[in-house]
Amino acid sequence: MSVLAWIIYDITEDKPRNKVAKLLKKSGLFRVQKSVFLGKLNSSRFDELGEQCLELINEKTDSVYLFPFCQEDFRNIKVLGQGFDKKLVNDEILAMFF
Amino acid sequence: MSVLAWIIYDITEDKPRNKVAKLLKKSGLFRVQKSVFLGKLNSSRFDELGEQCLELINEKTDSVYLFPFCQEDFRNIKVLGQGFDKKLVNDEILAMFF
Repeated sequence: MSVLAWIIYDITEDKPRNKVAKLLKKSGLFRVQKSVFLGKLNSSRFDELGEQCLELINEKTDSVYLFPFCQEDFRNIKVLGQGFDKKLVNDEILAMFF
Repeated sequence: MSVLAWIIYDITEDKPRNKVAKLLKKSGLFRVQKSVFLGKLNSSRFDELGEQCLELINEKTDSVYLFPFCQEDFRNIKVLGQGFDKKLVNDEILAMFF
């Protein structure tokens, strides 16, 4: 089974932040904002990604949210303002999800 | 019908940011991080809240994500590190949702 995943993080130090971004990219997710990734994952990969992020961050200062969506919930997401950074995400990518 | 809503924002100026926080609080949502709210809303209130946030923010600089979850998706959310700020959210509130 696959989920549509949004992952949002707030990581203080550059090094772990870059590592998390690299990990998410390598997992096939698309960067839609500086600290926001979006994409399709199978459920076990979603769980695994949570564990991998946990290993990279400092739990005392950083936070990561991993949000899984079924198709129906996904359709009802609202993104206002600069939620999609035009420099990072193009129409082709958006058309894959919306 | 009601949804479990997570709302995450990145708003540059203090004034609109405070107004959005006040609006979310008034809507019965709980603040779980500086810029993250969580709670139960009926679907029409969820839609309305999106419109109200849009009126308050600067669409050129700010972003707001309104994420709706069914019970099943909600159960699979992963919050790592400081996703729940202990100063803002107590066990009683968390027990309402998890």
